[in-house]
Amino acid sequence: MKLRLGMIGGGPGAFIGAVHRIAARIDDDYELVCGAFSSDAARSQATGLSLGLTAERSYGSYKELITAESQLPEHKRVQVISIVTPNHLHFEPARLALENGFHVILDKPATFSLQEAMELKAVMQQSGKLLCLTHTYTGYPMVKQARQLIAAGTIGNVRKVYVQYVQGWLSNLEEGTGNKQASWRTNPAKSGIAGAMGDIGTHAFNLAEYVSGCTLSHLCADIHTVVPGRQLDDDGAVLLKFTGGASGVLVATQIATGAENNIQISVYGEKGGIEWQQNDANSLIVRRADKPAETWRTGGSYTGSFASHNTRTPAGHPEGYLEAFANLYHNFALTVQATLLQQPATAEALDYPGIEEGIRGMAFIEQVIASGKSEQKWTPFIIH
Amino acid sequence: MKLRLGMIGGGPGAFIGAVHRIAARIDDDYELVCGAFSSDAARSQATGLSLGLTAERSYGSYKELITAESQLPEHKRVQVISIVTPNHLHFEPARLALENGFHVILDKPATFSLQEAMELKAVMQQSGKLLCLTHTYTGYPMVKQARQLIAAGTIGNVRKVYVQYVQGWLSNLEEGTGNKQASWRTNPAKSGIAGAMGDIGTHAFNLAEYVSGCTLSHLCADIHTVVPGRQLDDDGAVLLKFTGGASGVLVATQIATGAENNIQISVYGEKGGIEWQQNDANSLIVRRADKPAETWRTGGSYTGSFASHNTRTPAGHPEGYLEAFANLYHNFALTVQATLLQQPATAEALDYPGIEEGIRGMAFIEQVIASGKSEQKWTPFIIH
Amino acid sequence: MKLRLGMIGGGPGAFIGAVHRIAARIDDDYELVCGAFSSDAARSQATGLSLGLTAERSYGSYKELITAESQLPEHKRVQVISIVTPNHLHFEPARLALENGFHVILDKPATFSLQEAMELKAVMQQSGKLLCLTHTYTGYPMVKQARQLIAAGTIGNVRKVYVQYVQGWLSNLEEGTGNKQASWRTNPAKSGIAGAMGDIGTHAFNLAEYVSGCTLSHLCADIHTVVPGRQLDDDGAVLLKFTGGASGVLVATQIATGAENNIQISVYGEKGGIEWQQNDANSLIVRRADKPAETWRTGGSYTGSFASHNTRTPAGHPEGYLEAFANLYHNFALTVQATLLQQPATAEALDYPGIEEGIRGMAFIEQVIASGKSEQKWTPFIIH
Amino acid sequence: MKLRLGMIGGGPGAFIGAVHRIAARIDDDYELVCGAFSSDAARSQATGLSLGLTAERSYGSYKELITAESQLPEHKRVQVISIVTPNHLHFEPARLALENGFHVILDKPATFSLQEAMELKAVMQQSGKLLCLTHTYTGYPMVKQARQLIAAGTIGNVRKVYVQYVQGWLSNLEEGTGNKQASWRTNPAKSGIAGAMGDIGTHAFNLAEYVSGCTLSHLCADIHTVVPGRQLDDDGAVLLKFTGGASGVLVATQIATGAENNIQISVYGEKGGIEWQQNDANSLIVRRADKPAETWRTGGSYTGSFASHNTRTPAGHPEGYLEAFANLYHNFALTVQATLLQQPATAEALDYPGIEEGIRGMAFIEQVIASGKSEQKWTPFIIH
Repeated sequence: MKLRLGMIGGGPGAFIGAVHRIAARIDDDYELVCGAFSSDAARSQATGLSLGLTAERSYGSYKELITAESQLPEHKRVQVISIVTPNHLHFEPARLALENGFHVILDKPATFSLQEAMELKAVMQQSGKLLCLTHTYTGYPMVKQARQLIAAGTIGNVRKVYVQYVQGWLSNLEEGTGNKQASWRTNPAKSGIAGAMGDIGTHAFNLAEYVSGCTLSHLCADIHTVVPGRQLDDDGAVLLKFTGGASGVLVATQIATGAENNIQISVYGEKGGIEWQQNDANSLIVRRADKPAETWRTGGSYTGSFASHNTRTPAGHPEGYLEAFANLYHNFALTVQATLLQQPATAEALDYPGIEEGIRGMAFIEQVIASGKSEQKWTPFIIH
Repeated sequence: MKLRLGMIGGGPGAFIGAVHRIAARIDDDYELVCGAFSSDAARSQATGLSLGLTAERSYGSYKELITAESQLPEHKRVQVISIVTPNHLHFEPARLALENGFHVILDKPATFSLQEAMELKAVMQQSGKLLCLTHTYTGYPMVKQARQLIAAGTIGNVRKVYVQYVQGWLSNLEEGTGNKQASWRTNPAKSGIAGAMGDIGTHAFNLAEYVSGCTLSHLCADIHTVVPGRQLDDDGAVLLKFTGGASGVLVATQIATGAENNIQISVYGEKGGIEWQQNDANSLIVRRADKPAETWRTGGSYTGSFASHNTRTPAGHPEGYLEAFANLYHNFALTVQATLLQQPATAEALDYPGIEEGIRGMAFIEQVIASGKSEQKWTPFIIH
Repeated sequence: MKLRLGMIGGGPGAFIGAVHRIAARIDDDYELVCGAFSSDAARSQATGLSLGLTAERSYGSYKELITAESQLPEHKRVQVISIVTPNHLHFEPARLALENGFHVILDKPATFSLQEAMELKAVMQQSGKLLCLTHTYTGYPMVKQARQLIAAGTIGNVRKVYVQYVQGWLSNLEEGTGNKQASWRTNPAKSGIAGAMGDIGTHAFNLAEYVSGCTLSHLCADIHTVVPGRQLDDDGAVLLKFTGGASGVLVATQIATGAENNIQISVYGEKGGIEWQQNDANSLIVRRADKPAETWRTGGSYTGSFASHNTRTPAGHPEGYLEAFANLYHNFALTVQATLLQQPATAEALDYPGIEEGIRGMAFIEQVIASGKSEQKWTPFIIH
Repeated sequence: MKLRLGMIGGGPGAFIGAVHRIAARIDDDYELVCGAFSSDAARSQATGLSLGLTAERSYGSYKELITAESQLPEHKRVQVISIVTPNHLHFEPARLALENGFHVILDKPATFSLQEAMELKAVMQQSGKLLCLTHTYTGYPMVKQARQLIAAGTIGNVRKVYVQYVQGWLSNLEEGTGNKQASWRTNPAKSGIAGAMGDIGTHAFNLAEYVSGCTLSHLCADIHTVVPGRQLDDDGAVLLKFTGGASGVLVATQIATGAENNIQISVYGEKGGIEWQQNDANSLIVRRADKPAETWRTGGSYTGSFASHNTRTPAGHPEGYLEAFANLYHNFALTVQATLLQQPATAEALDYPGIEEGIRGMAFIEQVIASGKSEQKWTPFIIH
């Protein structure tokens, strides 16, 4: 049972739209049936046609898409809508989609503001529909394995959580060169109050809570706009305190010239530690006192059900970023299909990020930026 | 313009069929329209239905598929047929497909025997149709970069080619445990005269010639069947001589307990060397005398057109085995589309393995096994 | 011209004393002629005899050593005294040694308190003698290469400095098990006001300033005593601001169960970055925008004079921790020898840590601990 | 009880002499008391003086050294003589030293010819003195751990042994540039019948037998002189058969431009495998079926007695090539000291390479070169 998928955003010049579409195709759970790829109707149609859609279902705006699709017969109508627009165009399309009975896949961060994210949660709850937030890195099998091992007590009570996302692509004023990606991500009217912290800091924060199982309680941020002329932060470091006593450090920067996208996390507990990095995404280092470290591998016969459920190839045939992304789409599809069949979804299928992670991410953005401006050391992490 | 794809093989218990289907989907160049997934008609149909095909186009045999599809109107008829059966079922379906006007994607090794491969070439030439042989590893962007750098003289005249494919999955008599993959691959009636040398030795051989640009002239093989009770070789090592004076070593084994699939190649020339391994597939080490080694990366802004053409994500977001496989499908699609449009395909599109690689692979199998049995040191590598 | 070396500390149960002695031997610059290895005269003598010293020059206390050696004829008298005692026993022996005309090698951190370190500087200046502080990691050839590249502008103006020293050996209450190393290092009467921050935080801080060439201006610390019953900090993280605008993060922990001693540093500037870690100590990653990363290697023909001066073996024959330590001893010996010959020492020889680094380290300890207790975010890093 | 050490060879322009001297110093087991560092008496004396020797004991020839030292009183006389000359000057000094009652440390390969090595064994047996052959790589703690694990059955019966030593330093005709190291090593009058195979092939062969515990029975070699104008082989690859059924591949080359000295070995058995490489010398990968791979580390609390006996620093403080070399010197010293005390040496002390390894290495040289010239595939490895 393939789900009928629509897309909002992802037209010419976009990056993440194409990634979403590949992710949707890999496991064959979806059929792309419609899109509003651009606010320019002609460009949207051109994109739609290039993707094999008809002109009729290549809409000129998200409103048009939702209105038109709502009037189609149920067996033809889109079922899941992916929203891959810049942050300022997340909330309205998502709200409208949910209110009109569509499930939503939403690129991160959830919304433009925390307030919006909380409203979206209310809308979602009223709609009875589902929402997946694409925190890609939690889709990696070895990230899931790390979470499961920690949850199972393998490393004991967690003491330290180190997470970092070090990029270099905004080392210069890229937004002054016509780079569309750089332009909206550094524009407060489109990105929100945060640049790096919103774009990649939220990924790091989400990864930290997901893997460690810990809940942030306080933060202390040092936030910078390093490149002259830039309107938003492009660099930051944050001290973290978690409920339960663990502490940590989060680093997110986009101005580390020459660095790629090697997001990484280490978590240490009373009995051991785990270390994972995207550069060696199919390996998970598991350390324990007084024993050789182990390297768990994607596809290993010994991995748990969450890792193996999210794996397609034998150990040593690397799965990558697109497969991690596809795991979000696949698990969301399994969950949507289960609701359609009025059956329970498995724990493995349900293991995708959603609106709660979205709200926490937006709260992180607001409070990390506030902390960056504060002379006070610790800012409590509270979601009102 | 999506190409209409059919599949022969790839039913329940198969491994590579699912990989082919993902590879075909990733870049959205194909629409699966029909299949003969099993010689058991009911199983074939069940697979077809699960893949979203109609019962009518889920055929009970490859002959039925080719006959029936040939009678469909041209705009509906399958255009490209993927053959993912065991080796003994490569030649006949491929021949029939080509003779009936279909392009063919063929899993490696090309055929059951060298003789068949040569016949297939004749059939293909007469048909005017195209054939892609899925030597996956040549689809990796950094493998393509390696080939391009060597072809451009970066490391000077090639001196040494070391290639190895070390696996452990056949460390025990897996074929005695009901493992379907192990069963046919170790069965001379289905696999041909070679086990490990056919299954992975041909990959290593293809990679060696592809990357180095060298042509094998002589070989000297040490071939073993290590696991008692096994009918075919599961291990071997081969000394290589190339025309032009380079020499090398090829290792292929399936009995290295605990090893995964870390196929790797190093090529050294007068001025430098390159090193690549699947475990770090997005990196290419380039060495030169008296300079720091460089690490070229998939997605790097400095990579050449062959690498960048085969890359989907920014540097540091790893692409993996499935994307490498997808590159074969994508380039073949571009080439087929170009012929349909009567336009020339680009050099990048044409860079996929075909029947020549298939013939060389089959010759390698025949001569490496012969060399393994010979008391004579060097066996010339000749294709009659 | 071998220098006559004496040692204070380093008796039974000590760790770093043996390391100092190996470091002193590797390049044959020193001859061990005397020692006060323990405050227990019998134990000191036993150690001395086992090291080939005479009983006469195996002294029962550092005072005895300095007094007795001062009365020996100049050609026999010790010239350089290594002090490898716990922190509370650094200042007095060092002061006495300098005042009596001996050069001093001092284990880090310099003293028990900042006040002592400043006094020691005054004593040293008055004495006209030299002092080397053993911040081992700055002895690695690739650390020196990193400093030189940054000083030469290879990565442009520095933006970010990330340094971390993550250990696990104090994951449990080792000091309760009779572990002598753990005992004094966690004892405020012997170690001073800091545990982890004094023992390894100072190494990380020194490495950060040495490599980056930046000068700390402010810090914001989160300091923990994680293991119940411990008297001093065993974990911390520090946000850093440098004069000139760079910022950074320092992590030092001893409770990361399973972690070894992988001290590491990354520095990013406007034009590129460098990355080094002790786990791969003979490699230095140099990143630049839009080019492949380079791996500089100890022994590489292309390395600069500071790296090559500190290298003994060809590239690929790894040099390790003991050679890094030996580089400090060697460079100090070259400098002492130059003063004896009334010649200028080379820049490479003079490149060893001394009392200034000691004062900065002690200031770091005092202010990082103060910051850890403060509700105020930023503590200026001022040395009065 | 320090042993009195003399050295033959190791004067100006030598490489390995300095390495031997550092190795001898690291653990303080030896005191250098005399040397014949050059066949030029003035140069020998200059070297001796620079090393702190007297002019009297800086001899002009090895004969002079042995004659003069033999006449010194026993408590002053040299006890152990290190011979670090080119291969053609191994046998005579070693013979004379043994016959005059001195223990010998001999650089590899043992001698100029197999015949000489066998004679040396006879001389040694008659003398009752001891001999250590410096196959450095077997001194690494993780190499020793590998041997112990395999001997203990951890990976089951050995199936495959892959060993390679890939260098690039002779990529050009270095011997034409005045490079003294290159000159003698490529000169058949000094090096013997083999170049690369003698210099590094013997290391690889020794490592293979040492780690695997297997005994070579047959070999099939492809030997090349790649650089025009060179007089000896600079490249080769060898198929190996061992008694007991294991097989393998040995690669040794000096013309892999840009390669350093990354000697590496992998051994796979019925139940698992081990992998070690000098580039990550303090790690040993241990693989087993259906379990995560383990990384054993130098200094790990879980390592066996052979590894820990040969380790000086805690895990994560890397030990390198010089420490591996020092382990040979240290274990030989312990063994010599035990004989002086008429006590048994421990198994760990006795674990150093000696004349048997020397004979096997010389037989390897003779037969690998013979095999390289033969049209016959397999050459039995027989020592007459």
